Amino acid sequence: MFTGEIKALTFDVFGTVVDYYRTIVSEGEQLAQEKGLQVDWGAFALAWRNRYNPFIQRVERHELPWTKLDTLHRLALDEVLAEFHVTSLTEEEKVQLNRVWHRLQPWQDSVAGLTRLRRKFVLATLSNGNVALLTNMAKYSALPWDCILSAELARAYKPNPAIYQMAIELLDLPAEQIMLVAAHPYDLVAARLQGYKTAFIPRPLEYGPGSKSAGDLEQGQDFDVVASNMLDLAQQLGA
Amino acid sequence: MFTGEIKALTFDVFGTVVDYYRTIVSEGEQLAQEKGLQVDWGAFALAWRNRYNPFIQRVERHELPWTKLDTLHRLALDEVLAEFHVTSLTEEEKVQLNRVWHRLQPWQDSVAGLTRLRRKFVLATLSNGNVALLTNMAKYSALPWDCILSAELARAYKPNPAIYQMAIELLDLPAEQIMLVAAHPYDLVAARLQGYKTAFIPRPLEYGPGSKSAGDLEQGQDFDVVASNMLDLAQQLGA
Repeated sequence: MFTGEIKALTFDVFGTVVDYYRTIVSEGEQLAQEKGLQVDWGAFALAWRNRYNPFIQRVERHELPWTKLDTLHRLALDEVLAEFHVTSLTEEEKVQLNRVWHRLQPWQDSVAGLTRLRRKFVLATLSNGNVALLTNMAKYSALPWDCILSAELARAYKPNPAIYQMAIELLDLPAEQIMLVAAHPYDLVAARLQGYKTAFIPRPLEYGPGSKSAGDLEQGQDFDVVASNMLDLAQQLGA
Repeated sequence: MFTGEIKALTFDVFGTVVDYYRTIVSEGEQLAQEKGLQVDWGAFALAWRNRYNPFIQRVERHELPWTKLDTLHRLALDEVLAEFHVTSLTEEEKVQLNRVWHRLQPWQDSVAGLTRLRRKFVLATLSNGNVALLTNMAKYSALPWDCILSAELARAYKPNPAIYQMAIELLDLPAEQIMLVAAHPYDLVAARLQGYKTAFIPRPLEYGPGSKSAGDLEQGQDFDVVASNMLDLAQQLGA
């Protein structure tokens, strides 16, 4: 069991807590039925998510002014709809589809694991999602956060050090009493550079069945805790 | 019943949701017993709270740099301890006493009312308390917020328009779909100037039994809703 003194757990959300691939496929298939579309929604979900990093990079390089993630998702969606030759959606339907990120479904272990962890720790998001997105998602999917922390509050996207520093300031805790929980090694490495403790939860299905995931257990040896899911994390942290 | 279309309720916290007077008196009396102090804790609580506005004004007039409320509370506490001739507290005891603001008890109707309201609306704090203070208080007193919004995020204290504008931006809603709930008319007036809907809940015991409260029902005629407590507010908003 990990024995450091942790007061707050911060969480990457997309991929770590919720399953965007499955949710986009599921909502996409429903939309396709209503509208008579022929789309490979697995490929669509990945094409949409693959535009996430390039757009964030443009903000971080100041090629775009500060832009919240909802807006970046919409810019990316318009490109992906064109790429997949989906031309029949109304503006209202595009707005609704873009809001799928507010309705992402948790991994099966997430709510039960977070509920256990919350008895012992302050639980905060530490996500590139904007505040409204994270707040609406928490309400929709019953994620029991104590506090919504977002790139929007720092006006900087992970892995910019400013967002990890912001959470230290707002939680008013020494960095070593904060742990970042994430499925992505790059995020954990950036947090560790600011003094955070780190917990790695590989999510092999993040990019859908049969895809290569962001990190596997082999990479976990670098981090303070490696857990197979949120319930295992609760177990290892004594919650 | 109020019939406007509201999506999010934002709440003043000190005095509106929680009873600082009773909590400070209760913790003070316990401390006095342990330390053999003779203090009028009702007067102490009011002397402490009365320094709140002058300190906030000093930040707003830029006589002090941005300073979070925990720190202002401590500056005020040191003055009040001197005023009441309390000289025997250790530094650790002062830190613990200053954190009473993280442990404030809700009014009797608050948790039940908020729980009902949360089924229908996004519930956010909109308080001059810093993020850690509000997060710890919510955990301690089981306040079911969806989102912690704080003066600390705007680096401006109410009634500075910047804090109300910040909440509009972060909740990503038109101002007229946001309602401020508060026991203090000045706060509601400032929010209304930014386009918010307003709900007034007088708290006649805010300053203790027999004191004059911040606002009485007579003043309520200016606001969209006047409610006797959080359960009455839930009733009037159809939650």
